[in-house]
Amino acid sequence: MILELEKNITTDKKQVIFSRLFEQNLGFKEIYFGNKNIVYLTTNKHVSGLDRLEGVSKILSSFKHEFKLASREFQEINTVVDVDGVKIGGEKLVMIAGPCAVESLERTMTIAKKVQDLGVEILRGGAFKPRTSPYSFQGLQEKGLEILAEVKAKTGLKIITEVIDTETIGLVGEVADVFQIGSRNMQNFSLLKKIGRTQKPVLLKRGLAATLEELLLSAEYLLGEGNKNVILCERGIRTFSNHTRNTLDLSIIPTIKEVSHLPIIVDPSHATGKRNQIYDMSLASFAAGSDGIIVEVHNNPSEALSDGFQAILPEEFAKIVEDSKIIAKIRKRYF
Amino acid sequence: MILELEKNITTDKKQVIFSRLFEQNLGFKEIYFGNKNIVYLTTNKHVSGLDRLEGVSKILSSFKHEFKLASREFQEINTVVDVDGVKIGGEKLVMIAGPCAVESLERTMTIAKKVQDLGVEILRGGAFKPRTSPYSFQGLQEKGLEILAEVKAKTGLKIITEVIDTETIGLVGEVADVFQIGSRNMQNFSLLKKIGRTQKPVLLKRGLAATLEELLLSAEYLLGEGNKNVILCERGIRTFSNHTRNTLDLSIIPTIKEVSHLPIIVDPSHATGKRNQIYDMSLASFAAGSDGIIVEVHNNPSEALSDGFQAILPEEFAKIVEDSKIIAKIRKRYF
Amino acid sequence: MILELEKNITTDKKQVIFSRLFEQNLGFKEIYFGNKNIVYLTTNKHVSGLDRLEGVSKILSSFKHEFKLASREFQEINTVVDVDGVKIGGEKLVMIAGPCAVESLERTMTIAKKVQDLGVEILRGGAFKPRTSPYSFQGLQEKGLEILAEVKAKTGLKIITEVIDTETIGLVGEVADVFQIGSRNMQNFSLLKKIGRTQKPVLLKRGLAATLEELLLSAEYLLGEGNKNVILCERGIRTFSNHTRNTLDLSIIPTIKEVSHLPIIVDPSHATGKRNQIYDMSLASFAAGSDGIIVEVHNNPSEALSDGFQAILPEEFAKIVEDSKIIAKIRKRYF
Amino acid sequence: MILELEKNITTDKKQVIFSRLFEQNLGFKEIYFGNKNIVYLTTNKHVSGLDRLEGVSKILSSFKHEFKLASREFQEINTVVDVDGVKIGGEKLVMIAGPCAVESLERTMTIAKKVQDLGVEILRGGAFKPRTSPYSFQGLQEKGLEILAEVKAKTGLKIITEVIDTETIGLVGEVADVFQIGSRNMQNFSLLKKIGRTQKPVLLKRGLAATLEELLLSAEYLLGEGNKNVILCERGIRTFSNHTRNTLDLSIIPTIKEVSHLPIIVDPSHATGKRNQIYDMSLASFAAGSDGIIVEVHNNPSEALSDGFQAILPEEFAKIVEDSKIIAKIRKRYF
Repeated sequence: MILELEKNITTDKKQVIFSRLFEQNLGFKEIYFGNKNIVYLTTNKHVSGLDRLEGVSKILSSFKHEFKLASREFQEINTVVDVDGVKIGGEKLVMIAGPCAVESLERTMTIAKKVQDLGVEILRGGAFKPRTSPYSFQGLQEKGLEILAEVKAKTGLKIITEVIDTETIGLVGEVADVFQIGSRNMQNFSLLKKIGRTQKPVLLKRGLAATLEELLLSAEYLLGEGNKNVILCERGIRTFSNHTRNTLDLSIIPTIKEVSHLPIIVDPSHATGKRNQIYDMSLASFAAGSDGIIVEVHNNPSEALSDGFQAILPEEFAKIVEDSKIIAKIRKRYF
Repeated sequence: MILELEKNITTDKKQVIFSRLFEQNLGFKEIYFGNKNIVYLTTNKHVSGLDRLEGVSKILSSFKHEFKLASREFQEINTVVDVDGVKIGGEKLVMIAGPCAVESLERTMTIAKKVQDLGVEILRGGAFKPRTSPYSFQGLQEKGLEILAEVKAKTGLKIITEVIDTETIGLVGEVADVFQIGSRNMQNFSLLKKIGRTQKPVLLKRGLAATLEELLLSAEYLLGEGNKNVILCERGIRTFSNHTRNTLDLSIIPTIKEVSHLPIIVDPSHATGKRNQIYDMSLASFAAGSDGIIVEVHNNPSEALSDGFQAILPEEFAKIVEDSKIIAKIRKRYF
Repeated sequence: MILELEKNITTDKKQVIFSRLFEQNLGFKEIYFGNKNIVYLTTNKHVSGLDRLEGVSKILSSFKHEFKLASREFQEINTVVDVDGVKIGGEKLVMIAGPCAVESLERTMTIAKKVQDLGVEILRGGAFKPRTSPYSFQGLQEKGLEILAEVKAKTGLKIITEVIDTETIGLVGEVADVFQIGSRNMQNFSLLKKIGRTQKPVLLKRGLAATLEELLLSAEYLLGEGNKNVILCERGIRTFSNHTRNTLDLSIIPTIKEVSHLPIIVDPSHATGKRNQIYDMSLASFAAGSDGIIVEVHNNPSEALSDGFQAILPEEFAKIVEDSKIIAKIRKRYF
Repeated sequence: MILELEKNITTDKKQVIFSRLFEQNLGFKEIYFGNKNIVYLTTNKHVSGLDRLEGVSKILSSFKHEFKLASREFQEINTVVDVDGVKIGGEKLVMIAGPCAVESLERTMTIAKKVQDLGVEILRGGAFKPRTSPYSFQGLQEKGLEILAEVKAKTGLKIITEVIDTETIGLVGEVADVFQIGSRNMQNFSLLKKIGRTQKPVLLKRGLAATLEELLLSAEYLLGEGNKNVILCERGIRTFSNHTRNTLDLSIIPTIKEVSHLPIIVDPSHATGKRNQIYDMSLASFAAGSDGIIVEVHNNPSEALSDGFQAILPEEFAKIVEDSKIIAKIRKRYF
């Protein structure tokens, strides 16, 4: 159950409400969710009698799914996440581009400028890289963050970069405008909770074996701590199908739009793992209603330290931008 | 290995070639493949010395995959299947629409006319329905074929309908302009071989658990009997993801285009099993490069005897047609 | 709904029942199911008033799953299939062994005698081989059946061999004591129906992507035509897990035992595709409650024309037989 | 590459080796692995010339898989993990049992004593519970650890309990004799690295979508930090098969035994999610060669705060223990 409190509720009234919940031994949490003041109960059961409490303007108790704050029932209009002026989930589509991993200042700057020229406002680039093997390149780490900070300062691009553990949230947060939570950490609940306590936008990538419900329940961990700036990301799921690295599940886009108010973007680079599929899958993503894409772009993919085989050239990215504009119109969007 | 014979090869020269293959105990088959006269060996090994035979104009012996006749190495240009004047795989996209199952003459005629008005040239409709449960409606069978024949006679629409066993190939073939082989029969090799011996176009649907390689090897069974009019169809694969009935694997389109010359279309109705996803997934299919779609359209989905929950109304289909035209242009196609 | 008729029901009474069903426009079918005379309705709806009909001894109308004749609700005691004297599903476990494909009389006889010495009573061996690629060895076909017939005549072993289409049911049936329906044909409903009309025992292999419900609905196609001699077979499902060819889903055994009365055996050879897993997975199968195993045994696996990498030597099979006896005791079974 | 250093290598010689590696700009790490002093390179490339270095007794540079320290090539004999006297991976099988979550001192003590009477030496019980939904019971946390500590003190049972983040490693480590890393955290590399720096035994559960290679590479993160006390755990993978919660992939046991020296146990409770499958799957696990099982046992499953539907009663567990002893003998093991 979710209780929406009156806009100018007095502290006294709040106290009465809280006491009542305490008395009934109900777990609950108060958060400010956008411009709403919310109290949600952690029980899944319906509790009667709460609507008669003074100061409660609205009660929501019926949800089709187990997630509540992420649901359309809770919020009918789409969430538009504001990344320091760049909007995600609104009419304008978002194009996020950049190298898989930050490799050097020079290279990152080169790529950053090229994608900025194409209209990109958010740069992607990994400093801390979670890698399946301990023998793979683990990212430049702190040094990578410094490079991102410099590129940000010089170009004005917003930065999205991955945060892989609770210890480095502060460090990464100094540079990142959007925290990226990777697919392997989608159910790292300690990480989710801590990032939920910041107000910084967060890109939550779907786990390789996560259902729609599980993805949205992970989003609920973020929302439940008061961070309403959650962007979902489809990046392929693990199936038997072996012609691409993962299987891009584009149907999740209309489903998310139906059951949730959160924006969703697509990562065709990790989904396919194949450079020559990025154009096709980017266009398909927009045709399916995606709010944006996040693409690996590299000026010299064969030299990339990580996942070069899936990075595209800036000129290939330019073609995606150009053709996506046409698809955007069909969907009453623009770029 | 594939031997391409000279256009006007003499019977004598052919005999010499065949004798040579017999002597070496090599399994082989002669087929006319479009305007080519082909002899292919059934061994996977390389046999040396065959290129010195008179009457052999070309030898192909190196293939990246196990399929050969279906491969780009064998045929560089795209196959365009001619369905009695309607082309599949060319510049014009194909829109196939109609009810899941043929239910009555009146209803089928109503739907047929509505989709024909929207530019559809091929009508879909099941007479023989393979159903998971013996207690589900199994189609009108012969009666259904009669209805399709009448609709065809009155409208001039081409007909695609499923053939479920070897016994009914003749019967179904009297009405069908395109044989549909359902996903459950993708590896019914006896059926494939027999249909391969006709020259009638055939829509081969990907099995629920079929890899790209397996789909193309099933196509190879058809091609290997001399039927070059093969159209592939992606209709979703079985995965853990449960927000749609199956998971539409759109990435297979660019992969097919890379490794094979065969056309591929998409069935968003069976892939998603959800009416409200058909628009999104149809557009995404065209954006990904599909040669067409096959969609369930019904004038009264709630009364449909089979799969009504995934059928769309003619007016919803009209919107798909309209918006697909814009996407077609991006991909240098039209409708 | 299932109506069980009285043992000595008169033709007149039957006629009254049938007329009543005709009048109400209810699809139905009469079969003799073991020593029961059964009429089942093809509708899934409950029809009231039928229990008042004379000659009806029992009515079953409530089933947990969609399958009925295959369900525990319909038959509480286990079905024991009698293969010309060899029982499957009773206290004695069944060990079926032999080569993947029949290759020659000599080799088949050699293997047959070796496994017979170890207590095997049913020989496996493919004559018609469904193969993913048209370029793979397709089996000796008619010649293979002749070899099996000769081995059967000389050894007295029962024969299980695959039937791949409706045309060859008669031919295969002359030799086979058990029809094998391969996993690719699990939903070849035309084949199921025709085999259902024989009374010959049939081994129904689970499809690569088949759920429990789908497997039992395919069994229902066989049972519904009056063939109650159905044996199920788990042979691995297709998953992302790539250390074995398929993933053996042993949990299906206790589930089948819970919801169905049909026997189930395991094929560790096709499930794992790895010779060095057959011992472990055979023992695990019996520990999980399997009624038997079907194993590929070859006296010279490296020369096998099909799937030699998964065949084990007779002496390896001997060890399986020996150790399975101990496990059998724990499960109140024997061999 | 792995360099094994001489037993009594001097500091000087070591310095020469390290300098050489530094000079060549090679990433490396020195660990004490059991009684071996090891230096491993983090590059995957072969580096020539290192075998001529003084103090290096052995060089390993050829591995079939990407994992090295976890491989059979590195260590031929099985690793036996010593949990304060209780051995895992040796001839004696290990039975780990207890409630899903620690709920109260009284209940935990009751269950602990019951399973101890049956020969159990390690108690399982979750204090910190990672839950898909933020609204599910998250465990008693610190209070749960206190209860475990008291049960440990009174019974002498060893404790295995989950650690869900780096912050609580110290806290959990005060009570736990074995750290459990849950399937959702299998690729939480920050957590793996930190636990790798302790010497405490660790149970690493396979992720829902993890391949064999990925599981062993996660183990490699632990081993690579110097913690050689790694126990693997199969607990079901996510597939389309829906008759159990996950699909238990028992074939991984013989594969692990082939490619790795690490012990592996099975968790039938989480794999199946069904109480009535635990007996069957436990026996199957031992038949397949498992080194042990970890089972949820509860004296009143219907009252359990977490996953009660999969917990078995102590008397059901007693039957598993009894029958497993017989299977153990077949596999030259005992309990």
